Amino acid sequence: MSYDALAVRQEEVGNIDHALSMLSWDEAVMMPSGGGAARAESVATMASIRHRIITADDTRALIEVARRSALDEWKEANLREIEREHDRARALPERLVADLTRASVACEQLWRAARERNDWAAVRAPLAGLVALCRQKADHLSQASGKSPYDALLETYQSGITQADIDPLFAGLRSHLPGLIERRLASQADPLPLPGPFPVAAQRKLCADLMERVGFDFHRGRFDVSHHPFCGGVADDTRITTRFEDDDLFAGLMGTLHETGHALYEQGLPQTYRRQPVGSAAGMAIHESQSLIVEMQVCRGRAFLEYAAPLIARAFGADPIDPAWSVDNLERVGTRVERGFIRVYADELTYPLHVVLRYEIERDLIAGAIEVDDVPAAWDAAMQALLGLSTQGNYRDGCMQDVHWFAGLFGYFPCYTVGAVVAAQLFAALKRELPNIDARIRRGDFIALRDWLRREIHSRGRLLDGMQLVTAATGQPLQVDGFLSHLEQRYAGSGGP
Amino acid sequence: MSYDALAVRQEEVGNIDHALSMLSWDEAVMMPSGGGAARAESVATMASIRHRIITADDTRALIEVARRSALDEWKEANLREIEREHDRARALPERLVADLTRASVACEQLWRAARERNDWAAVRAPLAGLVALCRQKADHLSQASGKSPYDALLETYQSGITQADIDPLFAGLRSHLPGLIERRLASQADPLPLPGPFPVAAQRKLCADLMERVGFDFHRGRFDVSHHPFCGGVADDTRITTRFEDDDLFAGLMGTLHETGHALYEQGLPQTYRRQPVGSAAGMAIHESQSLIVEMQVCRGRAFLEYAAPLIARAFGADPIDPAWSVDNLERVGTRVERGFIRVYADELTYPLHVVLRYEIERDLIAGAIEVDDVPAAWDAAMQALLGLSTQGNYRDGCMQDVHWFAGLFGYFPCYTVGAVVAAQLFAALKRELPNIDARIRRGDFIALRDWLRREIHSRGRLLDGMQLVTAATGQPLQVDGFLSHLEQRYAGSGGP
Repeated sequence: MSYDALAVRQEEVGNIDHALSMLSWDEAVMMPSGGGAARAESVATMASIRHRIITADDTRALIEVARRSALDEWKEANLREIEREHDRARALPERLVADLTRASVACEQLWRAARERNDWAAVRAPLAGLVALCRQKADHLSQASGKSPYDALLETYQSGITQADIDPLFAGLRSHLPGLIERRLASQADPLPLPGPFPVAAQRKLCADLMERVGFDFHRGRFDVSHHPFCGGVADDTRITTRFEDDDLFAGLMGTLHETGHALYEQGLPQTYRRQPVGSAAGMAIHESQSLIVEMQVCRGRAFLEYAAPLIARAFGADPIDPAWSVDNLERVGTRVERGFIRVYADELTYPLHVVLRYEIERDLIAGAIEVDDVPAAWDAAMQALLGLSTQGNYRDGCMQDVHWFAGLFGYFPCYTVGAVVAAQLFAALKRELPNIDARIRRGDFIALRDWLRREIHSRGRLLDGMQLVTAATGQPLQVDGFLSHLEQRYAGSGGP
Repeated sequence: MSYDALAVRQEEVGNIDHALSMLSWDEAVMMPSGGGAARAESVATMASIRHRIITADDTRALIEVARRSALDEWKEANLREIEREHDRARALPERLVADLTRASVACEQLWRAARERNDWAAVRAPLAGLVALCRQKADHLSQASGKSPYDALLETYQSGITQADIDPLFAGLRSHLPGLIERRLASQADPLPLPGPFPVAAQRKLCADLMERVGFDFHRGRFDVSHHPFCGGVADDTRITTRFEDDDLFAGLMGTLHETGHALYEQGLPQTYRRQPVGSAAGMAIHESQSLIVEMQVCRGRAFLEYAAPLIARAFGADPIDPAWSVDNLERVGTRVERGFIRVYADELTYPLHVVLRYEIERDLIAGAIEVDDVPAAWDAAMQALLGLSTQGNYRDGCMQDVHWFAGLFGYFPCYTVGAVVAAQLFAALKRELPNIDARIRRGDFIALRDWLRREIHSRGRLLDGMQLVTAATGQPLQVDGFLSHLEQRYAGSGGP
């Protein structure tokens, strides 16, 4: 049967993806620097082979035949995803795929060292080369699909969302957030400093403990340290990383809980469709919604902190009576707002502006409206306008801070903030359905939360397109209002600390 | 040009091997147990794809054309290796390759848990299934090459060596060793116990320090802990592991130096032929000779211990005046002989008998002279005959102790002892050429040793067939005499401790 033939082929693709995902984890967490060149070659070859399998000449014919047979909704959705991936892959020459993979790995490796030295000159040319390849990719995809080049890149990371969705959403954030930030900065109380230092071993133990309580399955996953926290691996071997700082407890703790949200998604994907597109996550914005619902909606919220405060104090042998360890103070620490240079250190309120900035620059880069040489000035102008900070000459904390562009990931950034909007919308729906969720969280019961996410999101894989998934789970299409009122309530509400 | 076309294809094979090698390291060192099933599928797919590339229909024609063009000696050797691999791969149906890979990974995962429980019943059937697949493989290879089935398996791990070479060599060991062991046991002095315990962190630091002094390049490699020590990875990312026991310093220390010998080989392979067969190691017996020349010939020798004794004592804050830390006593510890059950714990003198035992059983298994159900009794009989120990009912310390058979590796064991013979022959040749080598080692200068190995072995890759390589480096074909006189001198010599 032609569907089965396609599914067998997808198993191979899934098995290559398993390897690619482990190699990528290994590169970030384990690989010695001298292994970089050989690794780039290996990964490029695997990407080429993957591409060859997906673009096999008879696939189109098999898809047409399969479409005429009786398929259940899962197989039908799988066929839709197979077709989408096939069409997108056919639009790209294998040569371009290998060149892009190789150039991305090489540019990322170069960036890692150059960023330390604040050395923009060292990455300008390789980045320009990578942008040229990404523009080619966008143009090929655009010609084949009729979408705009940037929309075609967006689809790589999140299907069902376009610039036309993002522009009004980000416009809403651009107009509301600066005022809200201003008000918060004027009114927020300084937290008492948490009495550190926080030995890394104790932080690690606390984090692993909370991960497990929230639902991470260590039998099917790992927890390690890396320079940039991320969630990698596959559904049955999900690997999260974090970064510990011995003077900043919340960085490691909330970072871990954030990645735990990603991991719960991976570990909850449908068992029956392992290695098939329909069995994988519904896109990076949806993925981010799962990390943010855990970190932002739940763990920085009062109910979770009431539960966790004594655990946290105990982990460092602190006196829980000390006002620094009070729930009020932890809440102040966890929701403190500050204008800063670095996206990954940004609080919930300023974070979207970091994304808006990157979105506007990468959109213009892909459209050819600006060039790589224009990026530092564009960055500085936007940072001044949005957050009142100058990054002139400070590439390291400016346009060189994120790995994405140096790894060829254009069209990814919007997912972070779309994910934040989705998370707020999902949590509001969950609260309507489970009005006692706060009470449960307060006593450390995360089962109802996890079951709801598993049912509405995780176990559905790609049965629905990302945005349809949001509508199905919440009864409403994606909209920014829920996120804005969450922010209003947390950062300008009378009930806040 | 047809040679170039073949070389490009081999690059792909080399890049897949990179991934397979990293996945295998990861499985042993990092993977959570729940990831095993997905990993087995991924590795099986990659092995199939590798097989498909090697067996491509036009390869034979390309080889014929390439053979008629003017090639330098490296390219000629590379072509010879490409042809060998192609012929061997063409003899095997792709289906068998995938089945074997999947069955091996699954049986190995099963064995890991069953061994702990001494549960032979749990592995009998899967092992019988795996043996059936390995016999099929051996038969296919035998029919295509005219070699015997067991010789065809041997060639998988070490080309240029056959049962006809091994039988007389092992007969020599079978007849000499029991008497030598007897004499040693009667005459050896008990060492003073080393005053432990040895904290793992301090052992690790000492080992990493000695690795680096001996020549391991940490820029292109890693050092980790795993249940069974091994050397994995690729030339530019060579990963060794060891196992520390806090009451047995020499297990971790000599284990690490053994794997360091393997790693020096990988890190010294010719830079120009990365990812080509001619650029890889000349077989597993040669590989083992490199670990054993470092561990057995050098590091358990008096000159090395004179250098290392103060470093070792200092690593544990011990008083170097304490007679337990004297060179004499360390030498007694490092060359102590004891009849035991476990190959990987065996001393240099009894070790070959463990290999002879396994060789005879696996040879008979592949020939169909015995079946898997006969293995425990055959094991017990041989252990009684060779080492005077009974393993009845003790599968865990008997025929279930090694991973090899449960991972489908039949024909591998002889490499260990052939490697020991090669190591002795190489070190004797090196000593003839560098008569002051002991003085250099005594002052911690390993450069001459490393340069000699690099020149004679490492940098030659597979330019020569394994046994030709021995002849080229030592001026003599492989022979057991040098090994036997090394053993006589160390374990029965008047100069020994």
